[in-house]
Amino acid sequence: MKFGGTSVANIERIRNVAAHVKREVEAGNEVAVVVSAMAGATNQLVAWCRELSPMHDAREYDAVVASGEQVTAGLLAIALQDAGVSARSWQGWQIPLKTDAAHGSARIADIDGNLLIERMSQGQVAVVAGFQGIAPDNRIATLGRGGSDTSAVAIAAAVKADRCDIYTDVDGVYTTDPRIVPNARRLERVSFEEMLEMASLGAKVLQVRSVELAMVHNVRVFVRSSFDAPDAPQAGPGTLPPGTLICDEDEIVEQQVVTGIAYSKDEAQVTLRRVADKPGVAASIFGPLAAANINVDMIVQNVAPGGAHTDVTFTVPVGELDRAMKVLEEARGEIDYEDLQGARDVVKVSVIGIGMRSHAGVASKAFKALAERGINIRVIATSEIKISVLIDAAYTELAVRTLHSVYGLDAA
Amino acid sequence: MKFGGTSVANIERIRNVAAHVKREVEAGNEVAVVVSAMAGATNQLVAWCRELSPMHDAREYDAVVASGEQVTAGLLAIALQDAGVSARSWQGWQIPLKTDAAHGSARIADIDGNLLIERMSQGQVAVVAGFQGIAPDNRIATLGRGGSDTSAVAIAAAVKADRCDIYTDVDGVYTTDPRIVPNARRLERVSFEEMLEMASLGAKVLQVRSVELAMVHNVRVFVRSSFDAPDAPQAGPGTLPPGTLICDEDEIVEQQVVTGIAYSKDEAQVTLRRVADKPGVAASIFGPLAAANINVDMIVQNVAPGGAHTDVTFTVPVGELDRAMKVLEEARGEIDYEDLQGARDVVKVSVIGIGMRSHAGVASKAFKALAERGINIRVIATSEIKISVLIDAAYTELAVRTLHSVYGLDAA
Repeated sequence: MKFGGTSVANIERIRNVAAHVKREVEAGNEVAVVVSAMAGATNQLVAWCRELSPMHDAREYDAVVASGEQVTAGLLAIALQDAGVSARSWQGWQIPLKTDAAHGSARIADIDGNLLIERMSQGQVAVVAGFQGIAPDNRIATLGRGGSDTSAVAIAAAVKADRCDIYTDVDGVYTTDPRIVPNARRLERVSFEEMLEMASLGAKVLQVRSVELAMVHNVRVFVRSSFDAPDAPQAGPGTLPPGTLICDEDEIVEQQVVTGIAYSKDEAQVTLRRVADKPGVAASIFGPLAAANINVDMIVQNVAPGGAHTDVTFTVPVGELDRAMKVLEEARGEIDYEDLQGARDVVKVSVIGIGMRSHAGVASKAFKALAERGINIRVIATSEIKISVLIDAAYTELAVRTLHSVYGLDAA
Repeated sequence: MKFGGTSVANIERIRNVAAHVKREVEAGNEVAVVVSAMAGATNQLVAWCRELSPMHDAREYDAVVASGEQVTAGLLAIALQDAGVSARSWQGWQIPLKTDAAHGSARIADIDGNLLIERMSQGQVAVVAGFQGIAPDNRIATLGRGGSDTSAVAIAAAVKADRCDIYTDVDGVYTTDPRIVPNARRLERVSFEEMLEMASLGAKVLQVRSVELAMVHNVRVFVRSSFDAPDAPQAGPGTLPPGTLICDEDEIVEQQVVTGIAYSKDEAQVTLRRVADKPGVAASIFGPLAAANINVDMIVQNVAPGGAHTDVTFTVPVGELDRAMKVLEEARGEIDYEDLQGARDVVKVSVIGIGMRSHAGVASKAFKALAERGINIRVIATSEIKISVLIDAAYTELAVRTLHSVYGLDAA
């Protein structure tokens, strides 16, 4: 079970979390719980570090910031004991949950689950401080913001859990953002691959890394609402309460062609006009960007009429646009282009579905529907299970609603 | 160097602490710093634990509460680095600073100073989270409230420090409380034994346990103000800035007969009238109190006229009076007394000085001076280096001022 910052924001909510955990224990489950810091706590700690030094030592930042989850873990253990449930808190170094040396945004290297499994088998709930572990230098390392989801999936894998329940402020994964499409449907099940695309494409329910980890270790992740009454009757054995199960595609019986529509406003478009079309031109563009650590997505190259020149378009994270433009201006002599254009007012809309693998014509349906609404497509990128289009940001809602409807995702 | 909660209460003050540390580093010293939690942080954490459960697990309480010092240690390390001083933070389990198993009020069992010494010799300031260590169960243990002084002295002993500087909100130890006697003098030097008496008798400058530890390990402790300008010129080699040095009595050249006057309002008087005077009567009174874990002080027994009965008077901490009275009422049959009286409106005033060992007539001077002021002495207790009297609380200020003056302690 994993509970985020708003679920443990104060003492009353921590008691509510304890009630959720107690219900699972009383149902006969062995339980590990991963908790985030109380909402706001991490922001305060980060702000102090920044105020002292914009270039603070990541190891000290980790020592400071990790304290937030330690507090919540101890408090939840106390709340559980007070509710009559045997429990203890665990910090990363006690488990141990080992990470690599990348302080501030470390990756989990190895978790020894034996101690946790031993205590859980004795009926003791393991309350684990999320978002942190111990680096090779014997110092605390944090996993980067939102890392508690990743902690939870990794702990679930280490203790060979049947399921990793992520309690969040929504009751599952939807076919699209319900704020845009009010009749979006909650998905009962989504495959790891689809969720990975939905997460990377802007669905905010789960961290991308946690989904990757779940896929690699085949950890079934169940997303459900922490606002459900903790004592509400749960569904019977083998079935689940309202939520979304993220699992292997073999577990998904009735496969839909399209599972969901995602969108991301974190995109900016870069276009290089009339680039001299010679061997190595792609390397001369993307080499300097990679060297500057700028992520590039959705690359399209069109041969211009005549053949001696080509237009190259791609997207970068919107926060990196200025830096990307600067890098490309500095490399102008190397690349040899006529014009450089950047645009922020774009959005990437994606159609995702594992069923695309076996169905033809999925993409053309999207293009046709968008064209009928007069929505111009700037860039197209496709993979085995998704189609992404870059369009003017003003058409975001219209495009999402159109695609949601055309693929039959609207609730009855 | 040790800095308490008010000295690290916000980012600005943490920077000020960094400036103090930098000054010592630039003077050529190898430095370890022990820090408390930011003022108020510990109280908030304790309040959360209590709100969740009045009977909370001390191990979880420790995990929660210890986070306050971890935050300060990391922040001070960042502040030092920002000021160009090499530094890193240390948590108890990283040093390791081992404690016994008494979670919530643990005692230090052993400190391995090797890692700290190695890093300090490389010019890296060791910033140690005070008030905590690691217990035999591999979990964090705290040393009890105010334990950061004890941490500091223990770390100083472990790294074989020349001196342990305690920065606090006063500029040293005074001959008595300056709020009562405005012309009290700051003491340049006090012996461990005297400071131990002053600390146990109510002078709030240092924790009793830290002074005991300093005496056992012969750690010279220097009490000075954290409000001094960090860049003020320090006294030359071999001398010290304003403050009080607590050291071995051999280091104190000009020994005074009386060093200071202390008082404690944390006393309550218990009197048993007409106790049957038979062998074992003391055991029948103090056995049940010890069993109830009540500390007894200042015991006086007077044979009443006739010889068959005796009056017994002693003091207990004022917070334990009700419990002590109850214990004694329940043991009435056993003890066989006529009347039981308790009084809260009393104060213990003490005259302390290592010179008393070699000077006669010190005590009678006090009794005479108090008598001349019409102050009635309820109980007297003496040791080799102190005389304590229990008097009516209303006379506290008068008694302290009288004794301060009669022993020549007033500033010129």
